[in-house]
Amino acid sequence: MHKVKSAVVGASGYSGEELVALLSRHAHVELVAVTSRQAAGKSLGEVFPRMAGSASSGLKFTEPSVDALIASGAAAVFLALPHGLAAEFAAPLRKAGVQVIDLSADFRLKSAEVFAEFYGEKHPAPALLADSVYALPEICGDAALQGAGLLACPGCYPTSILVPLVPLLRRKLIAPDSIVINSLSGVSGAGRKADIPFLFAECNESLRAYGAPKHRHLSEIEQELSSAAGEKVTVNFTPHLVPVTRGMISTIVVQPVHGEDAKAVEKAWADDYRGRSFVRIVPHLPDSKHVTSTNYIDLAARDDARTGRLLLFSALDNLVKGAAGQAIQAFNISRNWDERTGLS
Amino acid sequence: MHKVKSAVVGASGYSGEELVALLSRHAHVELVAVTSRQAAGKSLGEVFPRMAGSASSGLKFTEPSVDALIASGAAAVFLALPHGLAAEFAAPLRKAGVQVIDLSADFRLKSAEVFAEFYGEKHPAPALLADSVYALPEICGDAALQGAGLLACPGCYPTSILVPLVPLLRRKLIAPDSIVINSLSGVSGAGRKADIPFLFAECNESLRAYGAPKHRHLSEIEQELSSAAGEKVTVNFTPHLVPVTRGMISTIVVQPVHGEDAKAVEKAWADDYRGRSFVRIVPHLPDSKHVTSTNYIDLAARDDARTGRLLLFSALDNLVKGAAGQAIQAFNISRNWDERTGLS
Amino acid sequence: MHKVKSAVVGASGYSGEELVALLSRHAHVELVAVTSRQAAGKSLGEVFPRMAGSASSGLKFTEPSVDALIASGAAAVFLALPHGLAAEFAAPLRKAGVQVIDLSADFRLKSAEVFAEFYGEKHPAPALLADSVYALPEICGDAALQGAGLLACPGCYPTSILVPLVPLLRRKLIAPDSIVINSLSGVSGAGRKADIPFLFAECNESLRAYGAPKHRHLSEIEQELSSAAGEKVTVNFTPHLVPVTRGMISTIVVQPVHGEDAKAVEKAWADDYRGRSFVRIVPHLPDSKHVTSTNYIDLAARDDARTGRLLLFSALDNLVKGAAGQAIQAFNISRNWDERTGLS
Amino acid sequence: MHKVKSAVVGASGYSGEELVALLSRHAHVELVAVTSRQAAGKSLGEVFPRMAGSASSGLKFTEPSVDALIASGAAAVFLALPHGLAAEFAAPLRKAGVQVIDLSADFRLKSAEVFAEFYGEKHPAPALLADSVYALPEICGDAALQGAGLLACPGCYPTSILVPLVPLLRRKLIAPDSIVINSLSGVSGAGRKADIPFLFAECNESLRAYGAPKHRHLSEIEQELSSAAGEKVTVNFTPHLVPVTRGMISTIVVQPVHGEDAKAVEKAWADDYRGRSFVRIVPHLPDSKHVTSTNYIDLAARDDARTGRLLLFSALDNLVKGAAGQAIQAFNISRNWDERTGLS
Repeated sequence: MHKVKSAVVGASGYSGEELVALLSRHAHVELVAVTSRQAAGKSLGEVFPRMAGSASSGLKFTEPSVDALIASGAAAVFLALPHGLAAEFAAPLRKAGVQVIDLSADFRLKSAEVFAEFYGEKHPAPALLADSVYALPEICGDAALQGAGLLACPGCYPTSILVPLVPLLRRKLIAPDSIVINSLSGVSGAGRKADIPFLFAECNESLRAYGAPKHRHLSEIEQELSSAAGEKVTVNFTPHLVPVTRGMISTIVVQPVHGEDAKAVEKAWADDYRGRSFVRIVPHLPDSKHVTSTNYIDLAARDDARTGRLLLFSALDNLVKGAAGQAIQAFNISRNWDERTGLS
Repeated sequence: MHKVKSAVVGASGYSGEELVALLSRHAHVELVAVTSRQAAGKSLGEVFPRMAGSASSGLKFTEPSVDALIASGAAAVFLALPHGLAAEFAAPLRKAGVQVIDLSADFRLKSAEVFAEFYGEKHPAPALLADSVYALPEICGDAALQGAGLLACPGCYPTSILVPLVPLLRRKLIAPDSIVINSLSGVSGAGRKADIPFLFAECNESLRAYGAPKHRHLSEIEQELSSAAGEKVTVNFTPHLVPVTRGMISTIVVQPVHGEDAKAVEKAWADDYRGRSFVRIVPHLPDSKHVTSTNYIDLAARDDARTGRLLLFSALDNLVKGAAGQAIQAFNISRNWDERTGLS
Repeated sequence: MHKVKSAVVGASGYSGEELVALLSRHAHVELVAVTSRQAAGKSLGEVFPRMAGSASSGLKFTEPSVDALIASGAAAVFLALPHGLAAEFAAPLRKAGVQVIDLSADFRLKSAEVFAEFYGEKHPAPALLADSVYALPEICGDAALQGAGLLACPGCYPTSILVPLVPLLRRKLIAPDSIVINSLSGVSGAGRKADIPFLFAECNESLRAYGAPKHRHLSEIEQELSSAAGEKVTVNFTPHLVPVTRGMISTIVVQPVHGEDAKAVEKAWADDYRGRSFVRIVPHLPDSKHVTSTNYIDLAARDDARTGRLLLFSALDNLVKGAAGQAIQAFNISRNWDERTGLS
Repeated sequence: MHKVKSAVVGASGYSGEELVALLSRHAHVELVAVTSRQAAGKSLGEVFPRMAGSASSGLKFTEPSVDALIASGAAAVFLALPHGLAAEFAAPLRKAGVQVIDLSADFRLKSAEVFAEFYGEKHPAPALLADSVYALPEICGDAALQGAGLLACPGCYPTSILVPLVPLLRRKLIAPDSIVINSLSGVSGAGRKADIPFLFAECNESLRAYGAPKHRHLSEIEQELSSAAGEKVTVNFTPHLVPVTRGMISTIVVQPVHGEDAKAVEKAWADDYRGRSFVRIVPHLPDSKHVTSTNYIDLAARDDARTGRLLLFSALDNLVKGAAGQAIQAFNISRNWDERTGLS
């Protein structure tokens, strides 16, 4: 099969590294450019010693530049950049007809006003919002992705929360105002950047909530939950930082509308996710170590008969299903390939 | 000052070790016996290399025996035993007039029926239940402890949950049926016992909920919350196991009754905990590493203006304020000493 | 291509799990039996939740039994058993003409006397020693493995030590009596067994040497070093347990015979390991995290001009190149397949 | 007793924090100033949440300034600064008659030339070198410290190496050219500074040697070893970074001169360290977790009968005996107080 020339911008961060590692083994991809301001001039093998000896290890990092990306012949560009910066690449690349798979938050929200509220700055490219797809395949479905030019890939928190909740809100099984979410995230979620709070000696033997009560990703979480519910949904969401490198679990408490039980939850999941490769409904409470370095999201539900509420649990790898793996899954579908290509 | 002869039963576990380490430096305590089936015949210094070179390091472990404890002249006996077994020591020791400070769950519940429901067995010594004090000093107050003969010391989960919630329920600031609790616990909470799920290679890089929806400690949590509220309180409680040795945090979401805010929460805490040495209301979200190896419990509250709910946060060391430190604090008060003796 | 029916005995341990995971994706293998006393009757997906959803996840564990293994039609049986027990399976399987790939220590030593000295018991099947191959492909070479019926696969310590040292001893570049080895091992090396010293709370924040001065694996290390040197070699070897799940590094200090430098070392490695897929000579000091979950062994050398000695460094994953991956690599070669099959 | 006014410069790093925590509970010390460029204007309780609620928690950080330190009335100033910068404070403070306890490398070497060789820059205050004491109490003895004005306190690597080796070299029990040292260090040893290699996600599940073959601290290690041996000693030293927050172990291989065994080693240690409070000769191989947060250094020796060499082992907490605790111990002795004051 003809290979699609692809590039990764911001390739030296953790999500970027994961993207590069996965794409370099992807059967239908030819990696033609990887960019990084810090790593420019060095090879993949030098910057990522894990990759030494692999077929792509000689590929050199270049300075990020729209012109150079276009010149590389890339038909698909993955953006692993901070929000705000991603749009600066996405706009001209789209104009040039290049497919953009964006891992930042720039094109996840439908409303530039909500972006401004949560991110504290004007949206950098509001005209593109209408054309972007919120690229969570299990939620948006394959049709929305096929042929899409701008994929706005959700990150780890939204994925871990939307996959368990959306089928329940769509069916009006749970009360939209009853949702309480607690998530635990590994430290790689903070990115490969030199910040004291993420030093080993600060994170090891440390457990801490942060970002409550209004984490930025709430904006997209509530956008998608509201869309599923057909009404405005507002949730409690508390993220926690815990000492693992990779992994995320979410524990969600909800009120069923008519006494629905865990079986009804599992049935809704099974119905909506029939045929999807990366959702597993598991008999035990999900453990992040069972999904590390995979694109799976594990789900479980339990009745809390004593309070009449339901407990929902999910686990994923924040760098795979919560970032690079999900982006590739969506990209696969956009190209009409098996969603598992390069991911198993 | 005259020293109180004291003993620790079940001294080779993690709580037992912490008790021994703290009591051996306690100004008013003379450690006269430490028992452990596995360690009998060895010295403290041999079994706990941390203690080598200390004044008590030569003290020998003995087989656990009520007669030997009484013969040792101990006026106070700390029990760091599994539930069920603790009562076998507590009953004859109380009969002999010895003060018992019990770290197990055996005497925390007022109702033998609730014990049977949650622990799946008949209560081993129901006659003693009426005489025991639920020894959480910040909640029961000093008067209840002074001169008490049987102190039932709460463990880590109840402490991390009751200290933030009780003042709010007493004042009817929050809706009793709105409480959703998520707790994260370090692995030492599982005890020093050879179980595969607690091996390093099973816990490292692992995040998992467990024990939901009906953890045993819910029974005492709800007993005390109900007592504070003046009505039956049932809560959602999900514990999680995370890869730290020591530390526990709880994140609690509640509905205020009349729109009370975080300031009102902090005022209630400040009022109830005025003069208490080990409660800190902190400006940041509590981090377990700030309380490790101390008897502090750190608290914070936040408004979630978007949902109208309140977020409560606590952090403690599961082996100190959640076990050995708390037991010694209650013991201090029972003896009319400063609650900080031996703890700072 | 025709697939080789294969079985794994002792499949519920860490090495066994890794073997099963790798073999279930191996292009030329059909997994026909996995045995485990504890897991018998359960499926792979139940026992290893990581494997849920994979093609092999429904395969059921059976009780270990030679007859059942033979009846399964397995042409190759991997043994991931403790030493002593492995021989009980190897002997009748070999008699029945089944290829045995043994990950235990039972057939690594050429001398039953040395086995008795280091393992404290009589060798269980001395007659088989002569037929076994010490299956470290980089050292024994492909020819020794092709068609071999009994592969004695070295574990993590010998691999991490022999790969850097053997080429130097063969060339007499270093003094055989000058070798000082320090190795650091992750905790999964101790196996999935319920032992207090390997609990999370015992290993986390702990650094400790152990097993010095006469670790059991010294016997095979020295056997192979002596064979390379053409004279008896005795070394200092100190293993250390450190809090990682996977990973091993070795730091080796040696005296060059005629002032050879690090360049000469790297040349010897490059010559001996030309064409080998899993040895990487790296420019930095090897880091275990760069080889985790791969079959690579990374090597580096440095001159210590001040003392005139040479420093050698290696890193590998103790469960892959140090166990399951190496076994599969040797098995591949024994079958005349590319050594990388199923390993990249 | 009259309290000595004391100050800590560079107090917001890990060693600085440990100094402040220990000094604030020291019976003979009044903490009058703590300085930090980043933390100036904030209180101890704000910067170190662990200290909130303690007696000193209200003390404010100030900008580092020699004039302000002198104006504070401090009679003793602890410097927890990078090398080079420490001398800028030490020189004027000494001139003003203030005692300086320096935790940096600036005054550990007797020779400005060796400093220039290892640190790559001219020594900033060579005139002071002659007046400084290498303040490792177990080695220099009490007399050298009593009344000393400039204490150059050794860090973690030298302490973990010199304490086991010096008694043996003094007695000529071991061959000075036979010494091979491997050390493992926790990540807090790298300081509280924002560097990517020390992020949690870089250190967790990572084992790596670094700094070989010519780590800066070799200069002082060899200076002191040479002084003990009465001849120039050059050693092999390989430090490793491992994922613990605190803790250091060293494993040292040496050749005895006349077949001396581990018993002779232990006798030499017992003789030299009789009466010292912080050296423990332990029966097991030292484990860093047994000394965490203490000022102990644990030692053990083993015969390697097979090679005729001796194995020496040590363990300490890099922030206590390897930094702040050692500085306070030396300061105590300099003031003729019990060396344990404030340390147990």
